[in-house]
Amino acid sequence: MNYPMIISTLGHVLQIEGVFMLLPSIVGLIYQDSSGVVFAVMAMCLFLLGTLLTVKKPENTTIYLKEGCVITALSWILMSFFGALPFYITEEIPNLLDAFFETVSGFTTTGASIMPNVEILSHASQFWRCFTHWLGGMGVLVFLLAVIPMSGGSNINLMRAESPGPSVGKLVPKMRQTARLLYLIYFTLTSMEILLLVIGKMPVFDSICSSFATAGTGGFGVKNDSMVSQSAYIQWVVTIFMILFGINFNFYFYLLYRHIKKAFKMSEVRVYLIIILASIAIITTNILYQVGSFWAALRHSSFQVASIITTTGFASMNFDLWPETSKAILVTLMFIGACAGSTGGGIKVSRFIILIKSLGRELKSYIYPKSVSKISIDGNPVEHEVTRSVNVYIITFLICFTASFLLVSIDNKGLITSFTAVAATINNIGPGLELVGSTQNYSHFSDLSKLVLIFDMLAGRLELFPLLILFHPKLYFNKPIFSRKSR
Amino acid sequence: MNYPMIISTLGHVLQIEGVFMLLPSIVGLIYQDSSGVVFAVMAMCLFLLGTLLTVKKPENTTIYLKEGCVITALSWILMSFFGALPFYITEEIPNLLDAFFETVSGFTTTGASIMPNVEILSHASQFWRCFTHWLGGMGVLVFLLAVIPMSGGSNINLMRAESPGPSVGKLVPKMRQTARLLYLIYFTLTSMEILLLVIGKMPVFDSICSSFATAGTGGFGVKNDSMVSQSAYIQWVVTIFMILFGINFNFYFYLLYRHIKKAFKMSEVRVYLIIILASIAIITTNILYQVGSFWAALRHSSFQVASIITTTGFASMNFDLWPETSKAILVTLMFIGACAGSTGGGIKVSRFIILIKSLGRELKSYIYPKSVSKISIDGNPVEHEVTRSVNVYIITFLICFTASFLLVSIDNKGLITSFTAVAATINNIGPGLELVGSTQNYSHFSDLSKLVLIFDMLAGRLELFPLLILFHPKLYFNKPIFSRKSR
Repeated sequence: MNYPMIISTLGHVLQIEGVFMLLPSIVGLIYQDSSGVVFAVMAMCLFLLGTLLTVKKPENTTIYLKEGCVITALSWILMSFFGALPFYITEEIPNLLDAFFETVSGFTTTGASIMPNVEILSHASQFWRCFTHWLGGMGVLVFLLAVIPMSGGSNINLMRAESPGPSVGKLVPKMRQTARLLYLIYFTLTSMEILLLVIGKMPVFDSICSSFATAGTGGFGVKNDSMVSQSAYIQWVVTIFMILFGINFNFYFYLLYRHIKKAFKMSEVRVYLIIILASIAIITTNILYQVGSFWAALRHSSFQVASIITTTGFASMNFDLWPETSKAILVTLMFIGACAGSTGGGIKVSRFIILIKSLGRELKSYIYPKSVSKISIDGNPVEHEVTRSVNVYIITFLICFTASFLLVSIDNKGLITSFTAVAATINNIGPGLELVGSTQNYSHFSDLSKLVLIFDMLAGRLELFPLLILFHPKLYFNKPIFSRKSR
Repeated sequence: MNYPMIISTLGHVLQIEGVFMLLPSIVGLIYQDSSGVVFAVMAMCLFLLGTLLTVKKPENTTIYLKEGCVITALSWILMSFFGALPFYITEEIPNLLDAFFETVSGFTTTGASIMPNVEILSHASQFWRCFTHWLGGMGVLVFLLAVIPMSGGSNINLMRAESPGPSVGKLVPKMRQTARLLYLIYFTLTSMEILLLVIGKMPVFDSICSSFATAGTGGFGVKNDSMVSQSAYIQWVVTIFMILFGINFNFYFYLLYRHIKKAFKMSEVRVYLIIILASIAIITTNILYQVGSFWAALRHSSFQVASIITTTGFASMNFDLWPETSKAILVTLMFIGACAGSTGGGIKVSRFIILIKSLGRELKSYIYPKSVSKISIDGNPVEHEVTRSVNVYIITFLICFTASFLLVSIDNKGLITSFTAVAATINNIGPGLELVGSTQNYSHFSDLSKLVLIFDMLAGRLELFPLLILFHPKLYFNKPIFSRKSR
């Protein structure tokens, strides 16, 4: 393990967090919040701490996959811890575990909240809470790669550990440029949404915060009722941008470089849109009698489908009251999730495409036992290694899910609450059903459950392995300590 | 496709069912049931029909895997259909779909019932209902292999398609002898249980029927309250035999041939017993305050854990009223299921061992990217092909599960009812929670839901692929009809 390099990279991450924490202190200055001072002091402390850690330059700057995983996992835990301190110090969230829960929920773009009333937050805290979504959506290490030059193979291992989806490719030959391009697309889309929301007469501050929460597919709202009281125009704008941020960013890259055909031939994007349209069609029919008018039913079903499949978690109405088919579809969408390479969570559409195709191949092998067929996506053959890792991913996901479900069930809140609480955190959505429904929050859980759900949020965002690996004894000891015999 | 061989084998299956249907008619004779006559006539018709189908001897007697699958799937569907007719003709189950549901539930050893009152059934029908469990538990094709000589490679393909678990080995070099040995062990264990139940003062008829239902890990009871009103002694006997029938039959084979050490070193059996003991310990503690006495809590938790993990589905008390942790554990056990090569259903313990081990290997590959390690079970390396098929199995299982859940949810019976109804049928258990809880039944579902659940029961018992393959267009057409381009 290259400890000096791990420490130095973590230092850079804290520096970046320190710099970004100046933003809420500026907001505090504008709105004359006293909490702005806390953010300013915290920002300086963080920058200092980060700088201290980077003082000693590591001799060996290589980062292998295991170091990439460790850096990623520790960055996210540290970032969340220090990001939580202002909430705790200003006593806006008086309990440290709750503050940590809220910040992890922010950075992992989950949007699960322990706050019954978010409207009492100061502007600075409100801003920081939503900004964690924006930063967590694209990833802080991707940002690091965009601003700090790193040696050859190192950055791909960092990016592989942080980015969602079965495989990470470089958009352009240089990793640094890829990272910059991603943030450029991200920034542009976010600005467009802010503009459209302001045009719809949403206050500028609310527009900025809501756009952060949409862009990161997070879902923290500035209002207690999420998006219920917003106008139909604003709900439609948010719907469209949720769907846009759930699309694989390669799509925008192709558009940018005018590979229009290639962009629209991406099967992941197509399947993603087909799932969305089909779900909207069914749910609209299903809730029609409850909502009354066709257009309202269409708007609410579109909003909720987009919100859940992209794992944003905004609500335009209380979908816990919808008929069962609609709820069953939403629960299914929770697990499917958005496209790989987007800011959305869940298992990801591309993984499902690979799974369905490998199932087709399996059935075919029963009929033609001697045929050897490879599955391919968009004309590219899918390497056996990728299929295998997708399979292992799903299995690991299920194991984490089941273990969490059993632990959370100790709280005795009802099977649907426990099940959807785990589903909504491990898939980084936010609201679930019943006691964690869109009009509820997570404050009623025990400390154990909160810790489990914090683990799930991080595991979901970092796609399990970087976090799980922290618990593997072989990471710390070169020789196995738990195995009985050595071969 | 070797159609003549498929038809001839199906003929043999119907012949066997005809012969076995003489048993309930004898029971009818003893108890002077009028329905005994129906079974006798039906038995003769079936035997005649079967003989007609076997008249033309096929020239080519080879059965490849695809023919094995088709034979298996069609046998089970036909057997269930003809097995349902007596219930329908005697009007003891007046609706044909319900009668089919009940018989599929019997043969697949599910034990999900559409009957609110089973005590009104005639003795002949009662006997036939429970006997379907016994026959379905070990499999009718295995029985066929035991009595009818078949050419070399054919029988392994039949057995592979019908037997549960990731891989089927021959216990002894000859397949026919293996099949006979399995039925011998099965018959002996069943007789032992009948004897012990009779000693416990259960009526002989009830003992026989209950032992059939335990042996097949089915769960049809002869009483409306399942096993609630039985004595503690009888509940313990049933508990122990449920656990015994959930063990891989290789274990008994080793014992029979005095490979005692080898038997007790089988890791699947060990893990299976550890899961059972751990679940019993937690649930006993969890329900203690509700049940009152420690011994009663221990008995009920042991009974229910054994009943659910072996997918039998008997109830010693209404576990739908237990606290949530206990219910969550039971729902988890539903999916784990019994050992491969037992009469139990579910995903099977050995699959989970393979999955957990491949997860460990994956994590290790993050730390040592260049190490190539193979996983092994009981000292034998697990071939890559087996791991892959286990992965594909789980994925296919999840897809079937989700599709069924969405379809059943149209009935609007509540998410827990829909979820556990599908879980209880696809894992061949029987009772679920809430509206399909142990004191309830499946009669209230719509016809669509019943069809979906029938599919799930068959898919679960035949381990998905033999059934799914019936829907693959390439089975019937040599050239692809749905693919756009040929390569």
